[in-house]
Amino acid sequence: MAKEKKFVEAITSMDEDFAQWYTDIVKKAELADYSGVRGCMVIRPYGYAIWENIQRELDRMFKETGHENVYMPMFIPESLLNKEKEHVEGFAPEVAWVTHGGSEELTERLCVRPTSETLFCDHWSKTVQSYNDLPKLYNQWCSVVRWEKTTRPFLRTAEFLWQEGHTIHATEKEAEEETVRMLNVYATLAEEFLAIPVVKGQKTDKEKFAGASATYTIEALMHDGKALQAGTSHNFGDNFAKAFDIQFTDKDGKLKYVYETSWGMSTRIMGAIIMVHGDDSGLVLPPKVAPIQVVIIPISQHVEGVVGKANEIKDRISKIARVKMDTSDKMPGWKFNEYEMKGVPVRLEIGPKDIEKNQVVLVRRDTREKTFVSLDEIETKLPELLEDIQKSLYDKAKSVREEKTYKAADIEELKELAENKPGFIKAMWCGDRECEDKIKEVAGTTSRCMPFEQEKVSDTCVCCGKKAEKMVYWGKAY
Amino acid sequence: MAKEKKFVEAITSMDEDFAQWYTDIVKKAELADYSGVRGCMVIRPYGYAIWENIQRELDRMFKETGHENVYMPMFIPESLLNKEKEHVEGFAPEVAWVTHGGSEELTERLCVRPTSETLFCDHWSKTVQSYNDLPKLYNQWCSVVRWEKTTRPFLRTAEFLWQEGHTIHATEKEAEEETVRMLNVYATLAEEFLAIPVVKGQKTDKEKFAGASATYTIEALMHDGKALQAGTSHNFGDNFAKAFDIQFTDKDGKLKYVYETSWGMSTRIMGAIIMVHGDDSGLVLPPKVAPIQVVIIPISQHVEGVVGKANEIKDRISKIARVKMDTSDKMPGWKFNEYEMKGVPVRLEIGPKDIEKNQVVLVRRDTREKTFVSLDEIETKLPELLEDIQKSLYDKAKSVREEKTYKAADIEELKELAENKPGFIKAMWCGDRECEDKIKEVAGTTSRCMPFEQEKVSDTCVCCGKKAEKMVYWGKAY
Repeated sequence: MAKEKKFVEAITSMDEDFAQWYTDIVKKAELADYSGVRGCMVIRPYGYAIWENIQRELDRMFKETGHENVYMPMFIPESLLNKEKEHVEGFAPEVAWVTHGGSEELTERLCVRPTSETLFCDHWSKTVQSYNDLPKLYNQWCSVVRWEKTTRPFLRTAEFLWQEGHTIHATEKEAEEETVRMLNVYATLAEEFLAIPVVKGQKTDKEKFAGASATYTIEALMHDGKALQAGTSHNFGDNFAKAFDIQFTDKDGKLKYVYETSWGMSTRIMGAIIMVHGDDSGLVLPPKVAPIQVVIIPISQHVEGVVGKANEIKDRISKIARVKMDTSDKMPGWKFNEYEMKGVPVRLEIGPKDIEKNQVVLVRRDTREKTFVSLDEIETKLPELLEDIQKSLYDKAKSVREEKTYKAADIEELKELAENKPGFIKAMWCGDRECEDKIKEVAGTTSRCMPFEQEKVSDTCVCCGKKAEKMVYWGKAY
Repeated sequence: MAKEKKFVEAITSMDEDFAQWYTDIVKKAELADYSGVRGCMVIRPYGYAIWENIQRELDRMFKETGHENVYMPMFIPESLLNKEKEHVEGFAPEVAWVTHGGSEELTERLCVRPTSETLFCDHWSKTVQSYNDLPKLYNQWCSVVRWEKTTRPFLRTAEFLWQEGHTIHATEKEAEEETVRMLNVYATLAEEFLAIPVVKGQKTDKEKFAGASATYTIEALMHDGKALQAGTSHNFGDNFAKAFDIQFTDKDGKLKYVYETSWGMSTRIMGAIIMVHGDDSGLVLPPKVAPIQVVIIPISQHVEGVVGKANEIKDRISKIARVKMDTSDKMPGWKFNEYEMKGVPVRLEIGPKDIEKNQVVLVRRDTREKTFVSLDEIETKLPELLEDIQKSLYDKAKSVREEKTYKAADIEELKELAENKPGFIKAMWCGDRECEDKIKEVAGTTSRCMPFEQEKVSDTCVCCGKKAEKMVYWGKAY
């Protein structure tokens, strides 16, 4: 193998330049490519297959919790966007405006949806009449546009794919339960499917969604110590209901406003998969989300019987895993590197010697560990291995996060941590916006969330020193 | 039941006003609703569930034929759209233009994709190098925008959902094979899944896609005798490859242009389902595409044991069909009408008397035929019934189409048929554009397709009387 050109040579090391390492993986693993359109990317087949697996799993969980899919227009008339004051202030500066249809100038310009609260509200204001119509539990798979200045594949793009759930309820309590329920769905997806540990919590008023009463979030920590908001769930109370006049006749015969929620997860999560699990050889995919779970590479494939045996194995394990066999004329070493770059969890090698011994070689992507498995045991050993990889990736990510989670008692300590030890910083906060702003100014960190699992790090606000009850995760974020 | 307000009273009869009947179904079956955005519709949960079933089936067939899903940007820079001359002439008059991002005017305006050939070509021109990279068999699920003047839900909307397949190949022959293969996939979907018989054929040059060398189509006949183009597949030859400079190094070491195809099916097909199978009581859904295949309606549900028994049956048949049970407090007659409006293929009634007799009542949506089935046989009888409904709907639609397919030998005959007997008109054509234009002018019909299955209706062109070899289906179309 020494004579072969190594595929991985082209990738920058993570420690040398994390941003470049990220970009290299996106490109070399063929996840996405730049397009000729400013800030927009092309999601290539391998990247899209990962997204499809996430979609399928999320969609299953949404339906299991009673949600139905719908489709709203991609355009929002300016007057509709303007109906909820905070919402329009939050989004208007970053929308794309359609001003002409064909050769005619429109009488009212339309924005390309940055999010669809206004459209769902408009629809409900016309269709909801009585408590019998409630709740409405809707979800939409689509793309949205936010005119970002600087963009990076998956992490921040002018257009991105996502799902946006929108629900309305008869009571405030139901809406709050829904908001938390869907945050938990996201947390389950992240932790159990993507092997990404997350902190669940509430956003501060400064960081919450434009127009929301409360925003909940799951926050993940990347390998470089920066945080990534991986999914959010918003409780709007009756803010939008009042702005859009969505009323229903309740059981008591009285007209009441509905309570509303929305929640979203986007292709951003692809960035988290890369930055939580990847290494200097490329992508590392948790088996549950991997488009290819096992790649079969025949060794000395010109030798009679090798490809036939490999095919036989492929047929057998196709029933229990997503398998690909590569019999192209590239050298095995090339193939090894290629599928390592693509993060395929298990490589199965089979050559003449293995056939003699009635065995195959299984190589884990995450640890490079090699095991020899008898062909008689492949149906039990392979699923065990995949499960073990899934679990190991989660455990590893969790200990990395724990190592990089610090505590600060005062602003000096927080500042020093932020400068020298990238990660989450737990610190108490008095609840004042002024302190939050100052922490950002001094240390460059934002409040990631007020975690549901609180912990008394100290008695006083990390910034002003006044009595503080709330523990907050601070950090630099994508 | 006589005292109950009938849900169906609100719907216009098909013979009285077909267009209003159509709109009534869209609205009353809760498939879609108008939105506040000009020409755009809201696809409601029930309508979207039908579309999801179509998507799942098509996507399965695409993957089975080796295609991969990708995602391209929703915007096309004006200069990119302008690269292929015929293509831009066909689409530029009906695109929506984005001119501003946030508060800034863009240096180059972007159109919202009306179709994505230009984006795929741009991507391939940068990524394809050798014959090893070919073929590329891509598909994309997305929405597109065409600024139509007059719109109708599903049939013609400014924004619609679709899939667009785009492929490139090393040889002209492969591209042609792909074009026909995907047309056949559409025909299979229409006939076997949606129970809609279609005529497969080629579009005339006048009717082909902007920029294509050849366009193939499947044409279906609606209940009112108008045709609907239900899916198209285009062979571009090397037109786009030359405009976008997509070249590859072939096995012989020479640089060659690729050959390209594209093919699409959209939410328009929902209109065909309504207009092929629907009746004066509402929608009629073929079981394979129905979100609910069987609705269980307990009779005298206040009687002890009825709901329990119904639940037991529901659990049993959930394993073989998509089932919903309605135990709401509406009267059974109301429920009957509601699920008839929604086109649910089978209604299962169970009441105290049925329980005594160890039976259920099955009522077909299409024929209203009622059968009593022993509970011991439900697992065999129900699938048989669903299969029979699927087949009957196809057979019925096919005989309606045959009844409404006429032959014309000269222009007078064609004109009279077009005026008095709406349907397909088979007639010979010399191949001249002038005759095609004149037929439209005189009879108001367009050429639907030159069917693959040719038939010699006469010896001479229906318009000019010159010798003619080609038989064409003519008709008025949606």
